[in-house]
Amino acid sequence: MLNQLCLCAQIKSLDNLRYTPAGLPVLTMWLTHESWQTELQQQYLAKVEIQAKVLGDLAKNWPYQLGTMVEISGFLSQKGIYHSRPVLHIQQIREYKG
Amino acid sequence: MLNQLCLCAQIKSLDNLRYTPAGLPVLTMWLTHESWQTELQQQYLAKVEIQAKVLGDLAKNWPYQLGTMVEISGFLSQKGIYHSRPVLHIQQIREYKG
Repeated sequence: MLNQLCLCAQIKSLDNLRYTPAGLPVLTMWLTHESWQTELQQQYLAKVEIQAKVLGDLAKNWPYQLGTMVEISGFLSQKGIYHSRPVLHIQQIREYKG
Repeated sequence: MLNQLCLCAQIKSLDNLRYTPAGLPVLTMWLTHESWQTELQQQYLAKVEIQAKVLGDLAKNWPYQLGTMVEISGFLSQKGIYHSRPVLHIQQIREYKG
């Protein structure tokens, strides 16, 4: 079922690399986004910060520094059983060249 | 700049219709989503609840009842200046027939 977020954002913070109980490397970060969007034919300044996570080799060999603008697509899932805040699970990422 | 969420979800709750200071009808709701997604070639059960809002005629003449499965696309923006939680601004919506 459809669950896809495509977002250009700046890397605001990067946590330390961790490992899941299964030994998988996982990297979490905060992304910040600001853009003009159209709502009812009016311009709306959309601002959002969202936590994101990536697993595996990309987490272990993360190439994007703080402040980098990236273009990401992935799916949303709640942070945890007791944390309903949406987290973006990164499936694709590339640097955003504007 | 890219900021688009495409989500199939169930309407979990609908607030009362309100009006913005500018007199625009606005309807807010909670959506709930659950689906299997792929992460590192593994199946991941993504569960998320997200608040959504719609403005204008669609808000005033909202045709979708509680429990309806809908397919929505729109952009994310924080709830308010002091509320950083992402809210989905509905730009397109249709009933999800599976």
